[in-house]
Amino acid sequence: MIIRMSAQANTEDSIRIVERVRECGFEPFLARTKKGYVVVATGTGRLSELDILKSEPWVKSIEPLACPYPLASRQLKDERSVVEVGGVAIGGPEVVVIAGPCSVESPEQLFRTARVVKAFGAHLLRGGAFKPRTSPYDFQGLGVEGLRLLREASLETGLPVVTEVMGTEDVDDVAEYADMLQVGARNMQNFTLLRRLASTPRPILLKRGPSAHIKEWLLAAEYLLSGGNQNVVLCERGIKTFETELRNTLDLAAVALVRELSHLPIIVDPSHATGRRSIVSATSRAAIAVGADGLIVEVHPEPERALSDGPQSLDLDGFEQLMRDVCEPLRALAGSMALNI
Amino acid sequence: MIIRMSAQANTEDSIRIVERVRECGFEPFLARTKKGYVVVATGTGRLSELDILKSEPWVKSIEPLACPYPLASRQLKDERSVVEVGGVAIGGPEVVVIAGPCSVESPEQLFRTARVVKAFGAHLLRGGAFKPRTSPYDFQGLGVEGLRLLREASLETGLPVVTEVMGTEDVDDVAEYADMLQVGARNMQNFTLLRRLASTPRPILLKRGPSAHIKEWLLAAEYLLSGGNQNVVLCERGIKTFETELRNTLDLAAVALVRELSHLPIIVDPSHATGRRSIVSATSRAAIAVGADGLIVEVHPEPERALSDGPQSLDLDGFEQLMRDVCEPLRALAGSMALNI
Amino acid sequence: MIIRMSAQANTEDSIRIVERVRECGFEPFLARTKKGYVVVATGTGRLSELDILKSEPWVKSIEPLACPYPLASRQLKDERSVVEVGGVAIGGPEVVVIAGPCSVESPEQLFRTARVVKAFGAHLLRGGAFKPRTSPYDFQGLGVEGLRLLREASLETGLPVVTEVMGTEDVDDVAEYADMLQVGARNMQNFTLLRRLASTPRPILLKRGPSAHIKEWLLAAEYLLSGGNQNVVLCERGIKTFETELRNTLDLAAVALVRELSHLPIIVDPSHATGRRSIVSATSRAAIAVGADGLIVEVHPEPERALSDGPQSLDLDGFEQLMRDVCEPLRALAGSMALNI
Amino acid sequence: MIIRMSAQANTEDSIRIVERVRECGFEPFLARTKKGYVVVATGTGRLSELDILKSEPWVKSIEPLACPYPLASRQLKDERSVVEVGGVAIGGPEVVVIAGPCSVESPEQLFRTARVVKAFGAHLLRGGAFKPRTSPYDFQGLGVEGLRLLREASLETGLPVVTEVMGTEDVDDVAEYADMLQVGARNMQNFTLLRRLASTPRPILLKRGPSAHIKEWLLAAEYLLSGGNQNVVLCERGIKTFETELRNTLDLAAVALVRELSHLPIIVDPSHATGRRSIVSATSRAAIAVGADGLIVEVHPEPERALSDGPQSLDLDGFEQLMRDVCEPLRALAGSMALNI
Repeated sequence: MIIRMSAQANTEDSIRIVERVRECGFEPFLARTKKGYVVVATGTGRLSELDILKSEPWVKSIEPLACPYPLASRQLKDERSVVEVGGVAIGGPEVVVIAGPCSVESPEQLFRTARVVKAFGAHLLRGGAFKPRTSPYDFQGLGVEGLRLLREASLETGLPVVTEVMGTEDVDDVAEYADMLQVGARNMQNFTLLRRLASTPRPILLKRGPSAHIKEWLLAAEYLLSGGNQNVVLCERGIKTFETELRNTLDLAAVALVRELSHLPIIVDPSHATGRRSIVSATSRAAIAVGADGLIVEVHPEPERALSDGPQSLDLDGFEQLMRDVCEPLRALAGSMALNI
Repeated sequence: MIIRMSAQANTEDSIRIVERVRECGFEPFLARTKKGYVVVATGTGRLSELDILKSEPWVKSIEPLACPYPLASRQLKDERSVVEVGGVAIGGPEVVVIAGPCSVESPEQLFRTARVVKAFGAHLLRGGAFKPRTSPYDFQGLGVEGLRLLREASLETGLPVVTEVMGTEDVDDVAEYADMLQVGARNMQNFTLLRRLASTPRPILLKRGPSAHIKEWLLAAEYLLSGGNQNVVLCERGIKTFETELRNTLDLAAVALVRELSHLPIIVDPSHATGRRSIVSATSRAAIAVGADGLIVEVHPEPERALSDGPQSLDLDGFEQLMRDVCEPLRALAGSMALNI
Repeated sequence: MIIRMSAQANTEDSIRIVERVRECGFEPFLARTKKGYVVVATGTGRLSELDILKSEPWVKSIEPLACPYPLASRQLKDERSVVEVGGVAIGGPEVVVIAGPCSVESPEQLFRTARVVKAFGAHLLRGGAFKPRTSPYDFQGLGVEGLRLLREASLETGLPVVTEVMGTEDVDDVAEYADMLQVGARNMQNFTLLRRLASTPRPILLKRGPSAHIKEWLLAAEYLLSGGNQNVVLCERGIKTFETELRNTLDLAAVALVRELSHLPIIVDPSHATGRRSIVSATSRAAIAVGADGLIVEVHPEPERALSDGPQSLDLDGFEQLMRDVCEPLRALAGSMALNI
Repeated sequence: MIIRMSAQANTEDSIRIVERVRECGFEPFLARTKKGYVVVATGTGRLSELDILKSEPWVKSIEPLACPYPLASRQLKDERSVVEVGGVAIGGPEVVVIAGPCSVESPEQLFRTARVVKAFGAHLLRGGAFKPRTSPYDFQGLGVEGLRLLREASLETGLPVVTEVMGTEDVDDVAEYADMLQVGARNMQNFTLLRRLASTPRPILLKRGPSAHIKEWLLAAEYLLSGGNQNVVLCERGIKTFETELRNTLDLAAVALVRELSHLPIIVDPSHATGRRSIVSATSRAAIAVGADGLIVEVHPEPERALSDGPQSLDLDGFEQLMRDVCEPLRALAGSMALNI
């Protein structure tokens, strides 16, 4: 059930209702929206007792849950959420661009990339230190050394850093060095990891699993939200289908649907979704046009020498081109059109 | 093999080469590009004999085929093709909008829709007279009566008509009443139908099969092209994947890739791709941004009473909204950006 | 609605009810089961009028349709159907083996194969004369000449012949030469073809489309059944999924489910399903164990020289091995176990 | 590269070669096969130096790696591996049946089930204590209390226990109470977990991910093997496809292919693969016929009251039926046929 408090209700009033909900046998969550506090009652408690709360002074309404992921849903709050990452707002009016190499390979590779993406207008720096690789014999990332380099590149350029965390035991390390923690596609339903990340103070970038239904994705976000981490950004990165001419199938209609179902910000990764440098620009344009709040793009000074994902990485000129031809006019356009539902 | 003629070579010179290619045991096709005539040699003939043609006066170069669909490919011609349908150019600078009901149901329904979509700027009228229905017990379309109504609506509004042809025996009828013949998704590999349509004078709208690889789709187009019909427009309408929250998965990266691989115009059907009215606008924007040459959209005066596909049809106000909010600014934008590869 | 006649009702009684059903605005179908006649009322007529039939002397019961494909369903009849093809019963106690080359290529190739598969126990001969090929430049089959060779091979060996029909205009030709007409996977929803085949006197082998839901498949069968052809055998031949290490994904659970949902016989094509000779035996065993009524297997005297589908064709020794090691013991087993649900 | 030692070479000889391989810059792995020791050199070392080992006394041959998962592959060893779990051999001549509830819910539920499955011939007991659930609001399992109950049920019945481990921090707990540790489908590419499990002394049951290519699955096994755990059993449990009438699509051809590519034992989970009790028997028969080394089946005394996966659980009578009608005759059959490739 969703218990909406009147706009005049303060935190204390709301917490009192939270306690009452717990006494009815439900698990309560408190959320704050523009229109006031909302208490979500999940689990299976005594509905008749809960119903009595209707007569409480600050309770405006009680309504049944409309979907299995109440905290991620538009039912909870009408307005879209904005997640702040090191001073950058994801989900606001500006399209956010996250750029950097697939893997951190060396100081030179990282710093050169970081300076260039900063110069051309990127808002955040990406780079993998812990790499989930299909084969145990492939390059597995520089680990903590990679994290240190990312932090250095961040200090130099002023770009906040996003990087992947693969296991619960690395959460503290990654949270120390990075501004935002990424859950990789293959870990989207690693519930142990999600539960651990729910209690980190860092915002989370939650990639969609390669075969995750939209509902499963939003329920993965619900693990984070219900565990206490409200700063969740979704990332569409392509799904696995019968089609093999591109690496994955970019599901942009899912972005439009997620905007309708959920208040969480959502960005798009055209690099992994397509695996093909030559169409990163076109699909980036489409991502923004469909309503994505941002892009995460792979950039490498020498893609042909990259230790991972070279064919989908833009080179430095390619990134400049992307920013000039694609993002600027569309960003303007996005402003002029009532894109925000 | 691809034999390129010099720009000075005339039709007669080229036809002479065509004959020589046939004598070498290949099946020849003649095409005209901005840079001059091109003869494509398919099948398995005597390569050493063909090689001798290099020394012919008007032959500029001979190169091996780079893909299995030479006539549809960019190797044949660098420039993109433009297909004319009743005076409307598909594949040119303007984004073309095809709109109308899923099925022709009655004169009132059709004429009312046709007038409105015309008024708000649509370029062609769509409407189904022969309907491929999953169940034999569902409404199968008005048949030739539906074709007559389409022709009438076309005469009244000036909009050329696109409609589906399901079987070889209907090709002449449909070609008599319609300006463009649509091959439905489930018929994309109905090779008997494709071969028959290769000899109709009408342009063809070739929908992608629900599980067609891009290569299979271009090879289906190759059936039309090699059979003699050069006026082929492709249409992406969503593919079948594990995802079920939308009707199909709209594959916009495929549009970008097809533009790279083929010179044929390509449009997008956001109605079938998503099955959900509320995201037709957002996905239309994305389709145009990714480089589609047009849209085909379902519009019905009373979607909730439609005999087929109501949930994905825009009502008349919805179509007006689509044209105003979405197409106009993006069309402007498309012009300002170097979208044409 | 399903109107069950009492066991004593004769044909005339039943036809009278058929007329009454039509008068109520429904489209009626008459079927015969072990327990007596059944009239199926499809479409949307006047239910209250139909209800009055309950009081008719020979009407036992009236019940609502439980699924969208009443004629194909178990609701219509409990017992499984048996389809006779040139004297061979498909759907009876014996597992039927259909074998032969993918394409008819020459008299030698066909006759040699036919004699061997006959010798080792095959029940029917398969072979393609009209070939649906992805590329217009590939071998398209020998056409009517291929049909003649098949008929000759049939006369010599006594094996009835199954071959594909691709278009409505070939139906009469194919029906003249072949004992059973195959609808290829890509034509499963070629409704024009299905409607035409509904009126041929030959039994139909209906392959599942590469991305057909089970429901869509049974509805394709319903086109044949409702059009008047009761002799339909289904064929599972693998579906298109993300997995690419085999040609298709063989869906044997679908065979078990179809047996539960439908009374129609169902066989399995392990050659197309896997595309890999080395696992045709293992998957054939599994097909029989799951309840398939038969197999359709590709056999070629020299697979490495086949004009189509060589990698999945068994050679003649391979077929002997299949029959000896696989089919015989399992056939025995199938008999001893109550496989028929 | 694969360096095969002669049959006479002893452990010491082989370890000397291991050292030499490491000195050449490769990462070496030592394996023992029926024909003698084999040293696998992975990574990128100096091939010319490695080549010199050819002249070493006990080195029989050096050959390049034929696939990306050398330790899991048939190239390493011809014979199939047998994995012992608490005295039960998986991969040997007998088909192994693992049975029990989806989740451990209570002592009564577990003990009753355990006694019955034992009585009807099951070899191992399954039951979930840590449950990966799509929604954070669903029953998450009894945790360590569930592990204790499983151990108790094992002591009483003599059945070794298989249960899932979800995170690295639970590995020691689960390894203390269970005989075999299961990696769930959604964790198949949780590489942090795989690396941790490589060093547990317990055998691992590695479920295939819902959208895992066979190659990705074998590479996940390679993480375990290369990390030091040789006791890996694979489990096919259905993949995600467009088909929705069953929970997943059971991929039995994959079982046949995996037997060809890998020496690892492989079992099938017909419960998760189909999600439908009524076809568990038929698909179990097929799994054994295709060559599976065993089954893992969900059984619950009252499926309609199960806290998870009720619709796919057999009740106690259903399990008796499965063992009597399906497993016994097929097991006999499997013995009589040369199923082992």
